Amino acid sequence: EAWEVIEYKRIERKFKFNDFKEALDFTVKVGELAELEGHHPDIMLSWGKVVVTLTTHKIGGLSENDFILAAKIDRL
Amino acid sequence: EAWEVIEYKRIERKFKFNDFKEALDFTVKVGELAELEGHHPDIMLSWGKVVVTLTTHKIGGLSENDFILAAKIDRL
Repeated sequence: EAWEVIEYKRIERKFKFNDFKEALDFTVKVGELAELEGHHPDIMLSWGKVVVTLTTHKIGGLSENDFILAAKIDRL
Repeated sequence: EAWEVIEYKRIERKFKFNDFKEALDFTVKVGELAELEGHHPDIMLSWGKVVVTLTTHKIGGLSENDFILAAKIDRL
């Protein structure tokens, strides 16, 4: 899975897991990273799946911060 | 905010918080409760907001399990 650009306004990546617990643990890791970075994604958590969406609300589109956080999420 | 029935197939409730961290902590509580119950919601986490959606995939609609979990989430 890769980051997809949606309407040139946000990037989104889907992560798959073996169960709900693994998906929840990943959500927590992404959330803690977001707190450290001071930049917050939308996170859709469901059984075995997490979808992370990044955008910069202040400018209504994508900024460097989104790509920095995306790269750090990829390294989790 | 109350639980809303969507298309007679799922129930959904929005929870508001003061920041991302509080919303993340609530997501973890709901997730841990879901693991205990063996019934798993979809959870949409964003800054200051969590939307919990409950349905029973096996029957493609609502079952008693959804309302039991909804009541327990209300008591978190």
